Amino acid sequence: MTRPQITTTQVGIVGGGPAGLMLSHLLALQGIDSVVVDNRTRWDIEHTVRAGILERDSVRLLVDAGVSDRVLHEGDEHDGIELAFGGASHRVDFKELTGASVWLYPQTSVFMDLADARAAAGADVRFGVTDSSVHDLTTDAPSIRFVDADGTAQEVRCRYVIGADGSRSMCRNEIPETARRQFFREYPYAWFGIICEAPKSAPELIYSHSDRGFALISQRTETIQRMYFQCDPEEDIDAWSDDRIWAELQARVALNGHTLKQGPITEKAVLRFRSFINEPMRHGSLLLAGDAAHTVPPTGAKGLNLALADVRVLAEVLERALRTGDDEVLEEYTDRALDRVWRSQHFSYWMTSMLHRHRDATDFDIQRQVAELRSVVGSRAGSTYLAEGYTGWPVG
Amino acid sequence: MTRPQITTTQVGIVGGGPAGLMLSHLLALQGIDSVVVDNRTRWDIEHTVRAGILERDSVRLLVDAGVSDRVLHEGDEHDGIELAFGGASHRVDFKELTGASVWLYPQTSVFMDLADARAAAGADVRFGVTDSSVHDLTTDAPSIRFVDADGTAQEVRCRYVIGADGSRSMCRNEIPETARRQFFREYPYAWFGIICEAPKSAPELIYSHSDRGFALISQRTETIQRMYFQCDPEEDIDAWSDDRIWAELQARVALNGHTLKQGPITEKAVLRFRSFINEPMRHGSLLLAGDAAHTVPPTGAKGLNLALADVRVLAEVLERALRTGDDEVLEEYTDRALDRVWRSQHFSYWMTSMLHRHRDATDFDIQRQVAELRSVVGSRAGSTYLAEGYTGWPVG
Repeated sequence: MTRPQITTTQVGIVGGGPAGLMLSHLLALQGIDSVVVDNRTRWDIEHTVRAGILERDSVRLLVDAGVSDRVLHEGDEHDGIELAFGGASHRVDFKELTGASVWLYPQTSVFMDLADARAAAGADVRFGVTDSSVHDLTTDAPSIRFVDADGTAQEVRCRYVIGADGSRSMCRNEIPETARRQFFREYPYAWFGIICEAPKSAPELIYSHSDRGFALISQRTETIQRMYFQCDPEEDIDAWSDDRIWAELQARVALNGHTLKQGPITEKAVLRFRSFINEPMRHGSLLLAGDAAHTVPPTGAKGLNLALADVRVLAEVLERALRTGDDEVLEEYTDRALDRVWRSQHFSYWMTSMLHRHRDATDFDIQRQVAELRSVVGSRAGSTYLAEGYTGWPVG
Repeated sequence: MTRPQITTTQVGIVGGGPAGLMLSHLLALQGIDSVVVDNRTRWDIEHTVRAGILERDSVRLLVDAGVSDRVLHEGDEHDGIELAFGGASHRVDFKELTGASVWLYPQTSVFMDLADARAAAGADVRFGVTDSSVHDLTTDAPSIRFVDADGTAQEVRCRYVIGADGSRSMCRNEIPETARRQFFREYPYAWFGIICEAPKSAPELIYSHSDRGFALISQRTETIQRMYFQCDPEEDIDAWSDDRIWAELQARVALNGHTLKQGPITEKAVLRFRSFINEPMRHGSLLLAGDAAHTVPPTGAKGLNLALADVRVLAEVLERALRTGDDEVLEEYTDRALDRVWRSQHFSYWMTSMLHRHRDATDFDIQRQVAELRSVVGSRAGSTYLAEGYTGWPVG
């Protein structure tokens, strides 16, 4: 076996998605050196369709950190959403209620902005690696080993390893069971998601409740749209022709007065729902960020925003730890990050349970949901409470 | 069979609890004559322990209608509640958030005030009747038949019959199945309720969440207190000695920093939870009010307040119907009353599901509840939304 080629850096980051790249970027702004490795190729990441709603502070982070202001030019500022239920549609005006808005800007664009910024800065980012593993995490000299895209064995030696390697995190699994606690919840819901070539059906997202089940009408660009309808987690994608999909989507939103602009469907997928938290987010010299540490259901679009909030805190505590040589400051990372994560778990749970039809739902349950939705839109306080959660709380 | 003794009136009211008596009182203020009949004796009703929290507008109704201002002298104005969870207690200040407060004043006192006021006005109220039945409800000459407390057969002939006869309503059952829709929900929760002779443990109600289950610390007078702890719906009362009850109550509230003042327990009962709505609330010349038309779980104390809100609307539409001779105006009663009822069902469901421990609760579920409670008390909008529901919405 050949000896690996060795690279020395301060922070080794496993995962080159938005969380890993943003952390690398924020560290660089503070003069801290890092190496990022990811099993996926850049092309793979760019072509994985993900969420598209950025909280106010996520946008601020992109712009203020100098990553890109493309979100401001090519993204769409959304000052509110439509909550459609009980035969009508009701706008929740975030801007008026809280002064904040959100931005429609796909996760893949966030990724590309970050990857471009890192590349322009000459950062060490290795996509398409194989056989990655992490070592000596409970020492002050951990490492990441992998085989690079050219087939060369590599070792990154660093002071801290960051696990930003997504929901199936390899890094997370290095934390012994006795040193962690995991929180799970499965949901009896799933989304049938499509991408289609059609004009926008509405300027903002429509969250549509009906006794046929939930539907979410989202957008992507002027000519590409994203839509979802609640389905069985075991739904067979092949059983759904384009015609059947459009009939179902139209039927659900028509109950609340909406009509969709149709077009060819280019992608179909079933998204399952799951809540997960790994506590703590630090183990020795390993720190987790984003999906590696927590998963939320998609209702409420919190996943990417939580990842960005994590790395904002993480960049701050890593800088202090490296500057002072005292890694006790890392102890606060878990509490600060999880405070937001738990609130987001609740927000996502709330949006999910308020809008979806449970398989055992009685007429009472459905009318109770409508009463809840009426209470929320009928109360300035209720609408504001929802708007605060949707546009995002301040970073703790 | 002897012929019944006949009484003629405008409105015949089945049920002499707060709803029936308040309606009779409000009608009398408008010059409308009524007769009230109830199977129970006045003593029985006065000695049935029920809820004790009046919304702002329920108090206003009692005072403005001239029933009694005893609530203002002997009741206790509560400007907020304590929400206790996660090891600490957090006050929700209703007055500061919404300008409104609630009053601690037992339902039995409301009943006595109303019964006294009706007696003083010389109203026709018959307690302790037997064999009551209602007739000809789809005509404009319905009637109530019963045997009075002296054993004399009686018939009350009237223009409208009101079913204010509680959750096991006889009147409700006269509506044919084809003419109504009923909404149900059972909850896997119950309360073990006690009355004890002890000083107050706190000036306001404490709603205490813990992983041992929910507890509610309420008050009655300076020397008599009311407390509850979540129990299994099948709980065996005899298995609970006073010592065991106090140990359980203290253990639950201690987790959030509270200590209870103990004393002899004079009553013990298990209260089950149920949501129920009968729609419509009118069938021909029959109109339902209060528990006869709807039941809510006790969390949030909405039952009596809904009954009083019902009769406020009912008194108004009955007056218009009798004055104009056109009972089409009664058609609006169901929608106006049920709007509030459904919102209250949701509010009660929300308070219940936020605070109780589900028998299948995972660690995730309990932490998610704590995150929800933190979100509510951490947001002025969230706290205001809760305060609005608790102190009551304006009458529709």
